[in-house]
Amino acid sequence: MASVRIDKETGTTMVHMEAEYTPRRSWRTWLIGRPLPTADAPNQTIGKLIGLAVFASDNLSSTAYATQEILIILAAVGTSAFGYVFPISLAIAALLVIVTFSYEQTIHAYPGGGGAYIVARDNLGELPAQTAGAALLTDYVLTVAVSIASGVAQITSAYPALFPYRVWIAVGLVMFIMMINLRGVKESGAVFAIPTYFFVVMLFLTVGSGLFRYFSGSLGVLVDPPPLEQLHIAQGVSVFLILRAFASGTAAITGVEAISNGITAFREPRSRNAGITLIWMAAILGTLFLSISFLAGPIGAIPSEEETVISQLARTVFEGRGLPYLGVILATTLILIMAANTSFADFPRLSALHAGDGFLPRQLTYRGSRLVYSRGIILLALIASGLLIVFQASVTALIPLYAIGVFLSFTMSQSGMARRWWKIGHLAPGQEVQERGSTLRWERGWRIKLLINGFGATCTGIVMCIFAITKFRDGAWMIVLLIPILVLIFFRIHHHYKDLAAELSLDDYTGPPNVTPRHRVILPIGGVHQGTLVALRYACALSHDVTAVHVSIDPVEADKIQQKWEMWGQSVRLVILESPYRLLIEPLLSYIELLAAQRQPNELITIVVPQFVPKSWWHNVLHTQAALILRLALLTKPGITVTDVPYHLNGQPEQDGATIGKTVET
Amino acid sequence: MASVRIDKETGTTMVHMEAEYTPRRSWRTWLIGRPLPTADAPNQTIGKLIGLAVFASDNLSSTAYATQEILIILAAVGTSAFGYVFPISLAIAALLVIVTFSYEQTIHAYPGGGGAYIVARDNLGELPAQTAGAALLTDYVLTVAVSIASGVAQITSAYPALFPYRVWIAVGLVMFIMMINLRGVKESGAVFAIPTYFFVVMLFLTVGSGLFRYFSGSLGVLVDPPPLEQLHIAQGVSVFLILRAFASGTAAITGVEAISNGITAFREPRSRNAGITLIWMAAILGTLFLSISFLAGPIGAIPSEEETVISQLARTVFEGRGLPYLGVILATTLILIMAANTSFADFPRLSALHAGDGFLPRQLTYRGSRLVYSRGIILLALIASGLLIVFQASVTALIPLYAIGVFLSFTMSQSGMARRWWKIGHLAPGQEVQERGSTLRWERGWRIKLLINGFGATCTGIVMCIFAITKFRDGAWMIVLLIPILVLIFFRIHHHYKDLAAELSLDDYTGPPNVTPRHRVILPIGGVHQGTLVALRYACALSHDVTAVHVSIDPVEADKIQQKWEMWGQSVRLVILESPYRLLIEPLLSYIELLAAQRQPNELITIVVPQFVPKSWWHNVLHTQAALILRLALLTKPGITVTDVPYHLNGQPEQDGATIGKTVET
Repeated sequence: MASVRIDKETGTTMVHMEAEYTPRRSWRTWLIGRPLPTADAPNQTIGKLIGLAVFASDNLSSTAYATQEILIILAAVGTSAFGYVFPISLAIAALLVIVTFSYEQTIHAYPGGGGAYIVARDNLGELPAQTAGAALLTDYVLTVAVSIASGVAQITSAYPALFPYRVWIAVGLVMFIMMINLRGVKESGAVFAIPTYFFVVMLFLTVGSGLFRYFSGSLGVLVDPPPLEQLHIAQGVSVFLILRAFASGTAAITGVEAISNGITAFREPRSRNAGITLIWMAAILGTLFLSISFLAGPIGAIPSEEETVISQLARTVFEGRGLPYLGVILATTLILIMAANTSFADFPRLSALHAGDGFLPRQLTYRGSRLVYSRGIILLALIASGLLIVFQASVTALIPLYAIGVFLSFTMSQSGMARRWWKIGHLAPGQEVQERGSTLRWERGWRIKLLINGFGATCTGIVMCIFAITKFRDGAWMIVLLIPILVLIFFRIHHHYKDLAAELSLDDYTGPPNVTPRHRVILPIGGVHQGTLVALRYACALSHDVTAVHVSIDPVEADKIQQKWEMWGQSVRLVILESPYRLLIEPLLSYIELLAAQRQPNELITIVVPQFVPKSWWHNVLHTQAALILRLALLTKPGITVTDVPYHLNGQPEQDGATIGKTVET
Repeated sequence: MASVRIDKETGTTMVHMEAEYTPRRSWRTWLIGRPLPTADAPNQTIGKLIGLAVFASDNLSSTAYATQEILIILAAVGTSAFGYVFPISLAIAALLVIVTFSYEQTIHAYPGGGGAYIVARDNLGELPAQTAGAALLTDYVLTVAVSIASGVAQITSAYPALFPYRVWIAVGLVMFIMMINLRGVKESGAVFAIPTYFFVVMLFLTVGSGLFRYFSGSLGVLVDPPPLEQLHIAQGVSVFLILRAFASGTAAITGVEAISNGITAFREPRSRNAGITLIWMAAILGTLFLSISFLAGPIGAIPSEEETVISQLARTVFEGRGLPYLGVILATTLILIMAANTSFADFPRLSALHAGDGFLPRQLTYRGSRLVYSRGIILLALIASGLLIVFQASVTALIPLYAIGVFLSFTMSQSGMARRWWKIGHLAPGQEVQERGSTLRWERGWRIKLLINGFGATCTGIVMCIFAITKFRDGAWMIVLLIPILVLIFFRIHHHYKDLAAELSLDDYTGPPNVTPRHRVILPIGGVHQGTLVALRYACALSHDVTAVHVSIDPVEADKIQQKWEMWGQSVRLVILESPYRLLIEPLLSYIELLAAQRQPNELITIVVPQFVPKSWWHNVLHTQAALILRLALLTKPGITVTDVPYHLNGQPEQDGATIGKTVET
């Protein structure tokens, strides 16, 4: 397997071989499956039907809570205000249309994947790109928290006895999804298609029957409604309240961007297929959302932590908790959990993109044993679980944090697109400019396209501001604070990596001097025994200039060591350092520092420390960890190398010297 | 200052010098004072008056709670049973007399210090000695917890508003005493004499006035008594109950052994002075304890967590919470806190004794910057604070754990003494036997002395059993379990040290072979940059047999490294290990293991790992800690040494090579 090549000029031997290593079976294998070689990286494309299933779960699932969140805000002034639900929903649906058209254009412009981060990076610069990225990463975390919390709310609506355990059910679900994603179940069609279409069918059945019964006059009113929770002190209906309710409802639009991130997953013609899928998705979303909002009024739905509006609607339309009702609840729960799964696909990919550009720790770019970005997946699961615990898995508490990030990234992405059309409009016909994420070519009608994206950017920007202002006190302030902090951290990380690369660069480097260095070796000893002699032998192999040093706190002990050293010390110089204050490390450090200060250029200093390796870990508490302490203390002193020479206890074969001497000569 | 000597036979140079190191001023200096050189070790002796003050605080302080603890048990059958308090106290006083005479003999037999550990070790063997030691160490911890809890109970009796904060006051006091002891305030007379004699005077004043007023008929009854707490369901007065009450009261005797541990602190004639002090102490203790128990009846004292019996007695005798009352409370609080201090002197000394014999971690024998056994002091404070928190600083909850250890050590110590008299009785007159702790000489009257110690051992043994049985369910079971576990741990530690010494011994060792070893160096690299070149240069200084290894997960990256290596690799062999599962450490480990398996005798293997040292600690999260992981993984593989070659970022001068090359040649 190994290929050997010798460079003609320098005579350097280059050996190239595959590592002889099969990963061991362990609990991890059992949990997430056997490791996959890099060559197995998947390369499959999907059609529109499956594509819809894969990318729509996040988006469509918002219908499960958007209407309810509007109602909760309106509940502040009592049930009389519930009549505003439908007009507000119409406004949100209009926004959906605008965003959809904007993204449809992005999909065609970036056939290689056009997430907000890439679009902003290529068209607006690093700061907007990092801002969009920070907003999106924050939002993916919140998507997981909100979707899971909402999914659990469905379960506890059907089985109220589970309500006290909602936080742990939620965290358990996050861990389950994390595990599935660590296994790297690919975005394979069937797994996603069945629950998504099940949800779409069940919800169309519900709203279909509901609308039919409404117009035929046979629709009943909610029986045994949950108690109305007055979240705020009663006030009149104000513009601010309407805007707040609108802001809450915009959660419905989140997830529209998912397709633009995953265009490469579609079959050719990619952009066309992806674009059509996007429009389908928006149409389904709009229909369902408007229908639910419309029906909430006639049935007298009440927003509540204890029973979701979907549950109320389904049991009113189907007259009780029969099989169709349970089907709706099951479908809603499944799609909400799958919506969290969308974030598990997107967050690790986006954080790897950031890390690859040097704005997040590089480790996030490594793919784990199952070819997924395992660290990103685990990170997402941990943060989302933390959020669920802190916010007690309450959708209403989480919603004010949500959506602000999405709308920020929408705004960045659409502004970037607008800028791109501007650039395209100013190219000469036939001219091509290659950017990192796409190719610019002059296009007819760039003005109208600029107008669409510009209008999208303006609308989403306004919505973002409405959101930030109306929800500021409810929690949006956290996100308003968090995003700039994240951006700051990203840039500090970037700064570090750039500095590092500059310092390590070989570009202007003339190379080390070609003189053999002198090598001075210091051997601190606590006593003279077999372990010391192993280290002494090692030290003598490094250099002819070895000095043993003993820090003495007991003159009797020091005398003993001197006597033994005369016998076993192989004529190596021994320095006894008397420590009047009984300190062991500090005198040694100052001695080493003295030598370091006096050294000549071209002189290396190595400290060789004999280190016991006991057979059980608990034995370590029985030894002073001098080697470890010395290493930590010297790590900050430049130009000094510390080597521990391990001495394994309990008859294991040793770094030659000691035991070989024994076996050969006795 | 340095003396240099060259051994004539081997030519070994021996340098002897004092470390040039003055400990730095830091927060520790501020907290516990500047370090003391070893030469300052104290060497002072004390007379009987001061001796009583130094050693009696633990013992005398028990009068503060012993009567109360008897009452609490009797309270189970109501106030009618309180008449048993005085007879029970008489029995305890009788036990005190027996123990005092026993220990008086020990003091004369062991003028160099005769704690239970030493007496048991010299006369009964290792297992009883370790048992006695474990019992004593446990008990010292409990003395701290009980004394402090009781001291805090005095404070909260006077200032009930502080009751909710009792646990934190208690922990604060423990930390304060720990700090004082870390400073190493010597057992200087004045500090101890004033509060001890203040306490003795105040208590004699209280019981004196009380008795006078009782016999003159003017003693009143407790006004506004605390509520009676029924700790158990009412039952008849049984033998078991009386024995339980007796067991609780034996807490009064604890602390008698303190003088026998500290004989060396007395002025000559040591044993005589110490013996007389012991008898004084027992007389004061007996008088105070009996008087308090006697007076508890007439005044109608009620046992309570909220107000101590001492407080009740003082405010009845002095008719209210006036100055004399406050004086008693202050004196009692002070002596209780000082009782804890006695443990802080004894626990570290005893644990150092254990550690010196190899039954506890050796670190406990090191004396800190202030010449005290700092680690023992800190250990004691931590365990005692833990106990105070767990038991909510309740004296009643802690008492069942207390005293069982004391009586076990009494029994061991007296049995040991009895055995010693037996040995002495069977010596020829004039014959001398030197043991580790004392010298045996035939003595007239050994039979009567054997009888006294034997009787003492029997009585304390019986009390121990009574205690263990009657208090078993209240918490004594913890100690009954704990002591054997501690003994087991002590012997396992001893076993480890013995094994270690045998394995490291040079006695039957023939020495390492005198052949120059071959040295094989492996240099794992992640890229080719200035840090790599520094490590390469170091590796080349170690040996001519250097192999650089790159684990590749990306073929493009590997090609780049190969090209750079041809230019910068100084003709050193480069092995590219392709890792199909994207693991970095495992392929390297298996490669190193392969080399280790194939190596010849006399061949050393060193892994040289380039390691970044970033300027801020937080930068570490931005780098894979490959060096650290590799070190941990290889630590368990015998015969392989790992060296990190640090590469400091941000322009600090480097392990020559790199930076010198720069400055010299540009």
